[in-house]
Order: sequence, then structure tokens, then C-alpha cells
Amino acid sequence: MALVVQKYGGSSVADASCIKRVAQRIVATKKAGNDVVVIVSAMGDTTDELLDLAKQVSPLPPARELDMLLTSGERISMALLAMAIANLGHEARSFTGSQAGVITDSTHGRARIIDVTPGRIREALDLGRIAIVAGFQGVSQDTKDITTLGRGGSDTTAVALAAALEADVCEIYTDVDGIFTADPRIVPTARQIPRLSYEETLEMAACGAKILHLRCVEYARRFNVPIHVRSSFSAKEGTWVYSGPKTEGTEMEQPIISGVAHDRSEAKITVVGVPDKIGEAAAIFKTLADAEVNIDMIVQNVSAAATGRTDISFTLPTNDAQTALTALKKIQSQVVFESLLFDDQIGKVSLIGAGMRSHPGVTAKFFSALADAGVNIEMISTSEIRISVIVGQNEVDAAVNAAHSAFDLDADEVEAVVYGGTGR
Amino acid sequence: MALVVQKYGGSSVADASCIKRVAQRIVATKKAGNDVVVIVSAMGDTTDELLDLAKQVSPLPPARELDMLLTSGERISMALLAMAIANLGHEARSFTGSQAGVITDSTHGRARIIDVTPGRIREALDLGRIAIVAGFQGVSQDTKDITTLGRGGSDTTAVALAAALEADVCEIYTDVDGIFTADPRIVPTARQIPRLSYEETLEMAACGAKILHLRCVEYARRFNVPIHVRSSFSAKEGTWVYSGPKTEGTEMEQPIISGVAHDRSEAKITVVGVPDKIGEAAAIFKTLADAEVNIDMIVQNVSAAATGRTDISFTLPTNDAQTALTALKKIQSQVVFESLLFDDQIGKVSLIGAGMRSHPGVTAKFFSALADAGVNIEMISTSEIRISVIVGQNEVDAAVNAAHSAFDLDADEVEAVVYGGTGR
Repeated sequence: MALVVQKYGGSSVADASCIKRVAQRIVATKKAGNDVVVIVSAMGDTTDELLDLAKQVSPLPPARELDMLLTSGERISMALLAMAIANLGHEARSFTGSQAGVITDSTHGRARIIDVTPGRIREALDLGRIAIVAGFQGVSQDTKDITTLGRGGSDTTAVALAAALEADVCEIYTDVDGIFTADPRIVPTARQIPRLSYEETLEMAACGAKILHLRCVEYARRFNVPIHVRSSFSAKEGTWVYSGPKTEGTEMEQPIISGVAHDRSEAKITVVGVPDKIGEAAAIFKTLADAEVNIDMIVQNVSAAATGRTDISFTLPTNDAQTALTALKKIQSQVVFESLLFDDQIGKVSLIGAGMRSHPGVTAKFFSALADAGVNIEMISTSEIRISVIVGQNEVDAAVNAAHSAFDLDADEVEAVVYGGTGR
Repeated sequence: MALVVQKYGGSSVADASCIKRVAQRIVATKKAGNDVVVIVSAMGDTTDELLDLAKQVSPLPPARELDMLLTSGERISMALLAMAIANLGHEARSFTGSQAGVITDSTHGRARIIDVTPGRIREALDLGRIAIVAGFQGVSQDTKDITTLGRGGSDTTAVALAAALEADVCEIYTDVDGIFTADPRIVPTARQIPRLSYEETLEMAACGAKILHLRCVEYARRFNVPIHVRSSFSAKEGTWVYSGPKTEGTEMEQPIISGVAHDRSEAKITVVGVPDKIGEAAAIFKTLADAEVNIDMIVQNVSAAATGRTDISFTLPTNDAQTALTALKKIQSQVVFESLLFDDQIGKVSLIGAGMRSHPGVTAKFFSALADAGVNIEMISTSEIRISVIVGQNEVDAAVNAAHSAFDLDADEVEAVVYGGTGR
């Protein structure tokens, strides 16, 4: 008998009929002889509707109260799911994040998990019950206030509970069949990947693949929790993410390149004419850090000898751009740069694959493919298992397709799939 | 500085603009130098919408999960109310029933309060904050599960917290201006009553006046909590309910009769031809008690000498009638009664007033007024401060008006008011 943790996102429990279908899947897992713990997100658009209500009463609602408000969403879906399971003749108990022992710090809206004490969940399992847990929420250790975990919260709840309960697997159910070599909406020949390492999955998540959140993969890697990404709308095998040896089974034929990810959510800011002196770049990025702006790629050109000045470009989430520009303008008189350029018409295309570094020629092949497709590269950034380039936003599709074909990722048959993001 | 507990029903927080108006009233109370604790119901039709969702996933949802589901309603309204108050520049903190220390038994759906430990509320008040508490909900002492208090739950939460915090007053805000001498929809000349004793209010609540729930008045009487019933839509003085001496101020001119209540929600069952033997009535009412049917009035006729049999009639909530009839049919062979008659076209009209017993002639005057109005009396029941009669349902309006006029309750001027029930 295994202990299976399953997480269902908002689209999987969008209405009563979805909830009933999910209940059947859960009961089937239980009937197969497993202990089952289910983590559930809020139904469909509930979170957006609640946020909309909050805006109607206050332009800047206090974070503590926003968390109190938003956590009602999972309370609704988990109670309904428990009812649907009971209706199938199985005992289920729903638990809030607090009841499930998800202990966090006090940072409302993006709390970090600091402990998981799932005594009540364990007890429910021991009594033969199915435990349903509200994703995305916890309770703060200091103030005993209700907190939310922020983006990727429900996935993180699932992995954290799987780790604390020493589950055999953490199944993440979504509305696609697994993780693909590229977004099938852009690359019709994209293939579903049967298995990935944590590291590759991390890079894919960081580079815009929306199936698994970075944070949940980081947590899974730290505690070595096997993740199984599957569709709640089909019975397909999905994608396994774990740290197994790379040479099992047909591993020998595994391509070095796992997939091509892309991200259109970033913008580029260029600080023009920065004096080429020690400490100027530090001043710029300290200002951005103080403004809580997350920076992705950074490029500094060689300084022009004639002027003694250089340009520094960086990318960041477009949502943070206004904050960043305002913060930088405030230090213009101190750093004495010339001007700021802003471009939100960019996209990031990333090639991901383990062992890339040890295979010379990958970079050259990638760049050649882009050149052949007429795509201009604006910025480049690399890691052990990833090469990312910034291109014009309207060139993203061409770049993804070119890279996908160049590395022989195309499937023989094209599957009809809908590719979407997870909720929270 | 006083400690004021305020309770706002669902219609007072039905949408964002209602919530903002309520926030202003709360802030005004705080600015006047009071500590304020607010109990809030779910917004408008939220509870019905959630019940509807539950029905869609399960015809008979488990009570524990139904409580988990329904309590999300207050979580939404209280968080929004706290946001709206913050937006007016005052600090507010929302608390679930569990966080507010509302400890109950484990009877899901209609839990009884067994303790109130409002440490966090007291702490919030000491820090100068306004405390917002979810009405209608608590946490069970044994299982630490979320419970709901059932009908009248939010009013009861308010009175219970007022008692535990030793508040100076418990203000119950509703959508009418207070308690009236009769339902103004039926009697246009009905007057708003400035003050009532707990006992009179209890009788009125028990006889169909929907402003305050029986349970909350019982709790208030037990702990001597002054209740102030007011409209959240006006600044009128409302109705005070407390156990003060009856002879203050203009008390000498106070009419003996406080008001006329009516109730159309009951039905009448007659058990025809019950053998006039010891134990037969007991068998009938034990059967009904076992089926958890609440009985109101009971009348047994003098038995007919010829047959040795009698008829027993009783009234009960129409909702319980099917259960009662089924239970009674099961014991027909045991009790050997002849048949069952069922009538849901009845109404109860009650005359309520302290000291009624010591003023002879009240009963005669009441019955004469009904006779003059051509109303036939089917059943009669009396208490120390109340006379109730059962009449045909289509005669209720005439009976209420006749009694109201006969006891000089009519106002000089007719006010335009809307009379409604409270939420939960």
C-alpha cells in the first residue's frame, strides 16, 4: 500500500461536474489500495472574483485581510470535494492549511513554509479516511494568523505535505497531459516528456514553462519527493520528475536536450551611459533589490573607451517594470547615468538539457538555427544545463520552432492538446 | 469609554457599497470613544448559493463538510469589512469563530456554544483595533472541527461575545427600525416599540416576530446582556431589550399589551380517535420527539363518552410535518387511533404583554375583537404574558389588525417601513 498525494488545480475543480469527476479519480486511487491525501485549489475563477470584491471596498487592502478573504476559496472547493467523495461511499475529511499543520512565517500574500506538522492528516489516514487539504494557505507561527503562500502555493503545499508524510509520490493534476518539449500551441510537433530531472524541471519552470512552479520543484528536490505531472482530464501516463539515475531503460537514447521553453512576461530595461567605475553597478542593483524587484538576466557591454561609460541591460517581470523605473530615476543624480530605455516587446527562448556543457556545439547549433530562421538575438545568458536568449516578442514562435526542429525534438505524430498554465 | 458589540446581518453587507456604509457606521462608533467588536453574517445570498453548490455534488452532504463550506461565507464578508475599515484609516482585524474563541459542542449544523474564550479579541481591543468576528460559527471542543450554530447563529454569536467581554451593549443591526407592535406590512399603523423586557421579546420571537431569534434572546436574558435592535439603513433610535425596572420615565402610561405577533409557518395535525387511556398521548409525543419534531401548541378535546375516544391536535413547523406524519403512521397499529388530519392552511396570532394575567378582561377583549372581525378561533394557548390563537391562514391579517386596534396600539402617523426577517 502506497501513500499518494494528489494536487488538483482550479481548472480541475471549476464546477460541480468537474468536482464529481475528480472525486471518482480519488476514490479509484483509494480503491486501488492506497492512502490518499488530496490538495485542492480554489474553484476556477474564485480567486479573481474575490480579488475583485476586495478592490471594490479598498484600493489597497491590508495583506492580512486579503489572505483571510482569499483562503475562503479553497475552503469552498475542499468541502465540496469531500462531499462528492462521501457521496461515492468513501469517508473524506477536509482540512484548512492551519488544521493540516502548514506552518508559515508571517509574510502575508507570499508566506514561506517553515514547518509542516500533519498530525491530523496522519490520524485521518489511520482511520481509513481520505484527507482533503486546502492548498495555498497556512497559519503563521508567530501570530496564528491565516497566511497564503503566493504563486505556486498549492503545488508547494502538495510537495510539502508529501515530504512531511513521506509519501511515495506527489501527483500534480493539471489540464495538460504532462510536461512537453515545447508549448504545443506554438510547436504542434511538441512531444510529451516521460521523465525529467529536478534540475531540468527547475530550469524549464524558471524559463516560462508554466506546468510546475519553480518553488514547488525546489522543495521537491530538497526533500527528494517524486513528482508525477498528469492530466485530470485523461488517463495518460504524464511526466515523472525525480532524481533517478539517468541511465535506466532507454536512457542511452535520451536526447541531451529536453525541451525548449519560452516566456513573454518579461521586459528589458537598459541603463544608458553608466560611468565605468567600481560600485556603480552595485548601486543600481542594490536600489532594485531594495524596491523588491526580481531581476532575471543582466548584460553589461564593454565600456566605450572614448566616454568611459557603459550600458547595463537587464530583464525583469513586466509587472515590476514601473517600480524599477521609478526607483532608478531617483538615483540618477547619484549614479549620473544618461538615460533609461524600456522595452516590453521582448521574449525569452531557452534551450534546456542535462549535460549540455559536456556536449560542445549545442550553443553553435542553437544560434545557427535562430539565424537561419531570421531571428535576431538581443541578449544571451547560460547555465550548466540551459541557454537562454532574448529576442523580439514577435519572433518567439519562430525561434522556439527553429530550436525544436534543430535538436530533433519533433514528434512523429501531432497530438491535439491544449496547453495551459496552472492556477496557484 | 464603552465596549460596544455590533452585529450586522446579511442584508446589511449584501454588496461592496453596503459594506462601505457599514464600515462608516463602525468607524463613527469607534471615533465616539468606544471599543468596538463587530459580528458579521455572510453577504446577502451567499449561504443559499453555497447550499446550492453542495446539492449539486451530493444529495445528502456530510454535516461536517457542510459546516466547512458554509463558514467560508462569513470569512469573505468579515475580511471585506476589515478592508473597508482600514480604507477609512482605522485598524481592524478579522477573526474566525475559532480564532474568536467561540467553543461549541460537536453537533454540526446546530452546534451549541459551551464556552467563549475571546483572548484574541481582548488583545485586539487593547491595541486600539476594531475586532471583526465571523458570526454563526465556532470550533468544537472535542474534535477541533469547524461548526455552525444553526438558525439565529450570528445573533447568538454577538450576544455570547458581548456576555464574555462584558460589553455595555449588544447592538443588532437589521433592515428595519426596531421591533414593532405588529408586522407593518399587515398593520400600517404599527408602532415601533422603544423598549421591551426579555420575557416579552422571547414570547414575540417564539410567536413569529422575526427580528430577534429566540435563542439569542434566551442567551441575553441568562447573561443579562442589553440588546439594542437598530436599522443599519437609518439613524433611528430602535428598540432596547433588557431587564430594567418597568416604571422608569413614562412607564406609567405603558400599555399592558406590547404587540401582536403572527406566524404562518406552522401546520396542524389532528390524531383522530385516540383511545382515552393512560399512556396513549405519551406514546404519540414520544414518537414525535424521537423523530426530532418540534411541537408548539397541543389541544386535547374532552373524550366522547359513547366511544371512549378523543382527538389530539397539535401544531408544528410545516417543514417537520412530513416527518411527523410518517412517524405517526408507523405507530397506528400500536396506539390504534382512527386517522390523521393535516392542515397547513393555518396561522397563529399572539397577543403579548407583561402583566396580562393581572389585568382581567384581556382575553375577553381579544376574543371579542376577533369575533367582531368575523375570525373563527381553532385552537387556543396561553402563557403568563401571551395569548395565542390558531386561525385560518387567510384570516391572519384581519385578526392581527383587529387585535392591534382593540388594544390601542395604533400609531397616530403611519410610517413607511419595510419589515423583514434577519438572515442567520
